[in-house]
Amino acid sequence: MAKDFTTRAEDYSKWYNELVTKADLAENSGVRGCMVIKPYGYAIWEKMQQQLDKMFKETGHSNAYFPLFIPKSYLSKEAQHVEGFAKECAVVTHYRLKTSEDGKSVVVDPDAKLEEELIVRPTSETIIWDTYRGWIQSYRDLPILVNQWANVVRWEMRTRLFLRTAEFLWQEGHTAHATKQEAIDETEQMINVYSDFAEEFMAMPVIKGLKSEKERFAGAKETYCIEALMQDGKALQAGTSHFLGQNFAKAFDVKFTSKEGKQEYVWASSWGVSTRLMGALIMTHSDDHGLVLPPKLAPYQVVIVPIYKSQEQLDLISEKALSIKKELEKAGVSVKFDNRDFHKPGYKFAEYEFKGVPLRIAIGPRDLENNTVELARRDLLSKQTVENKNLNDTVVGLLDDIQKNLLNKALKFRKENTQDANTYEEFKELITKDAGFVYAHWDGSSESEQKIKEETKATIRCIPLDNKLEDGKCIYSGKPSTQRVIFAKSY
Amino acid sequence: MAKDFTTRAEDYSKWYNELVTKADLAENSGVRGCMVIKPYGYAIWEKMQQQLDKMFKETGHSNAYFPLFIPKSYLSKEAQHVEGFAKECAVVTHYRLKTSEDGKSVVVDPDAKLEEELIVRPTSETIIWDTYRGWIQSYRDLPILVNQWANVVRWEMRTRLFLRTAEFLWQEGHTAHATKQEAIDETEQMINVYSDFAEEFMAMPVIKGLKSEKERFAGAKETYCIEALMQDGKALQAGTSHFLGQNFAKAFDVKFTSKEGKQEYVWASSWGVSTRLMGALIMTHSDDHGLVLPPKLAPYQVVIVPIYKSQEQLDLISEKALSIKKELEKAGVSVKFDNRDFHKPGYKFAEYEFKGVPLRIAIGPRDLENNTVELARRDLLSKQTVENKNLNDTVVGLLDDIQKNLLNKALKFRKENTQDANTYEEFKELITKDAGFVYAHWDGSSESEQKIKEETKATIRCIPLDNKLEDGKCIYSGKPSTQRVIFAKSY
Repeated sequence: MAKDFTTRAEDYSKWYNELVTKADLAENSGVRGCMVIKPYGYAIWEKMQQQLDKMFKETGHSNAYFPLFIPKSYLSKEAQHVEGFAKECAVVTHYRLKTSEDGKSVVVDPDAKLEEELIVRPTSETIIWDTYRGWIQSYRDLPILVNQWANVVRWEMRTRLFLRTAEFLWQEGHTAHATKQEAIDETEQMINVYSDFAEEFMAMPVIKGLKSEKERFAGAKETYCIEALMQDGKALQAGTSHFLGQNFAKAFDVKFTSKEGKQEYVWASSWGVSTRLMGALIMTHSDDHGLVLPPKLAPYQVVIVPIYKSQEQLDLISEKALSIKKELEKAGVSVKFDNRDFHKPGYKFAEYEFKGVPLRIAIGPRDLENNTVELARRDLLSKQTVENKNLNDTVVGLLDDIQKNLLNKALKFRKENTQDANTYEEFKELITKDAGFVYAHWDGSSESEQKIKEETKATIRCIPLDNKLEDGKCIYSGKPSTQRVIFAKSY
Repeated sequence: MAKDFTTRAEDYSKWYNELVTKADLAENSGVRGCMVIKPYGYAIWEKMQQQLDKMFKETGHSNAYFPLFIPKSYLSKEAQHVEGFAKECAVVTHYRLKTSEDGKSVVVDPDAKLEEELIVRPTSETIIWDTYRGWIQSYRDLPILVNQWANVVRWEMRTRLFLRTAEFLWQEGHTAHATKQEAIDETEQMINVYSDFAEEFMAMPVIKGLKSEKERFAGAKETYCIEALMQDGKALQAGTSHFLGQNFAKAFDVKFTSKEGKQEYVWASSWGVSTRLMGALIMTHSDDHGLVLPPKLAPYQVVIVPIYKSQEQLDLISEKALSIKKELEKAGVSVKFDNRDFHKPGYKFAEYEFKGVPLRIAIGPRDLENNTVELARRDLLSKQTVENKNLNDTVVGLLDDIQKNLLNKALKFRKENTQDANTYEEFKELITKDAGFVYAHWDGSSESEQKIKEETKATIRCIPLDNKLEDGKCIYSGKPSTQRVIFAKSY
């Protein structure tokens, strides 16, 4: 499996593309920019969804569903929003096809033109705030804490599987509040939920911060984000949470009667993560042998491979394997037993290594005699023979250890690839080398930010929330600055 | 809540529409034919999804995701399929908007016209079989057992919430097999899964059967269905499972090398249920007091309402209510405690009755003294005061009883509304009265079927799988027939 597989050092981008397709995660479809998420890749996404959905519900949110289509006129209602999204949309103009005159194909029926074009949602603030107008009259109707799992479309010109696709899957939370503070608290709560999810489940360390005005969501007053560092030294924005102020309430005329009997505009937040997290997960942990998965998101945490020469041996080994599987499942471990007889053990070993299964158990005739199994860790590529006794404890302990090891390894990588730049020369040198996160002083102006981007391709990833204040001078303009911000090249 | 609520006898259709909106299940959106599924309605759909997904996985299926868009040319590849679906599609023709010349709105950018139009999927056979071509080379790659949870769009002219909407949510299973028999077995297995789900979870009895050629899915060799009977005497098709033969494999050139080394076309099935099930659920059980939900699909099975005059009383009752909630949750019962202080108990009683919560627990000051609670069943609208002791057992027992009672009531209704017609006169009289399922002899021809439909609006719902053979004469043509089929007016 791993033969003909490009290494990260050879060509990082090619390594990523090959990994995604060869590990059966996703592939390009016949529709430009749209991907097919294959069962193995989708199973990882489902694990992410389940956990995030649990965390959303624990923080008081409910799911709902809003239309795929947005009338074109809705997009114009929030001025900044349309600037940010109108450029790259799929537009539905007709609602019927008909058989062509030669009867051999179908053509668009010109008589079935829509009066107003419909946009396939690139994000749902407009249709949702148009709906909320009907849901909100009084402070008693607030807060509204709603999330939607959906597909969205942004017509990207350069697409890459999971990282940037025309259609992608995501969740978008849209909340409505009676006070500004409550909306800000919600926005901050959700960036913390994302951060906890990234670190605890994806084993991916992230930095929480605020976006600069230039990088903010179109229509937001403030955008919070989590930023992760990939193995090639590039940053990846893994999730955002927006404080929208009263912008959408004003655009869609959503008011409520306060306890004091006054008519006020509603305060809002929105927040989302997408199948882009799959790209982040892959690039955080995987290596030149293929995918590496944290146990908490692996479709199956353990695979059992039988090693046999005769049907009689296979029967005996299967009996043992199925009993181990049953016991492990009782302990909450997910297990696959691969008894396909048209592939050799070596083929299977290579396949599961490439697919990133955290633990492999091999059982051969000698193991039956000795009451042992062979355990192999994917993260360290290490093997050991262990006794069957207490196998459950051993496996649970190892899975826990793998989960921690992956986070620690990623933390160590980030630490080694985070640096301060004190002059523009230093900065340019670091950025040219894709040196990771570069902390540097910035004067807070969009002009300096823009110039730095043009000259180095680096952008401000965020202003970290836990930043220490520190007097300094902007690396570009030399003007005074009170804190360092994080620059990097990014996905 | 139930005031200003139309009864079923007054106007069944109005009753349904009011129920759906007033019970906070769904509403129409600003986009023609597209609905908003509200949190309470979506929570029921989520329960359905979770259970169905579990059943799909238990029968060996995995989830995946395929593109929202289908290139127009794909639709023409399977001749019957395009006939059935091409008429009613949302067509994407452009991929960009731009600011209008006056700067006040957005317009479609004429320079951004797609070379080939994209259809928003009405169903995914074509894009999936185009993908499967790349996944299948050998018998070793079979079977493929994949399901997708997705939104689809069919441009319906007359829409009704849940029952018929332009966009709806569904699952679509698409499987590929090496042999005809295996594909047929799969098709039958899935109609059994749907039938089990309908009866065990929705408490909705269904008849499994085959569609007539005329009513078959466009592109299928055989369509299996489950048919339910609504309270107005109309039938509702609740799920379908199609044996597709080699039609799509041939249209998309999907072949495999058999064990014997021969190149053969792949055999296929597809099967789906949608948010239409929500309409079926509502119309099977609900009454003139609002929604009635089977406990297995209720977002919360029990609601606790405190009855108090002072804050002190509320504190004491809350303590007890939260302890009951905790105990019930340990027993797997989902519970909502409604301590909103801006609504009176009477308001809350009416609200939860209307929303169909299976059991209501009311706790007042006297209950604290006597160590009792008041329990009210939604299905029977009955009340009893019970001792706190063994409350868990009482509640679990009652929920079980409600689930069974709803199924039995629906079975009784169906029995009372199922009749034989032996002459066309008898048949027309029954159909005119919306008398439910009418079993009648049919000669098997599409001509007789079409004439009956034109003259009575009744269609053949299915040829029941468990049908007894019986000599008879077609009610329309008088030609010989070997079995009765089910006719009804339908949704």
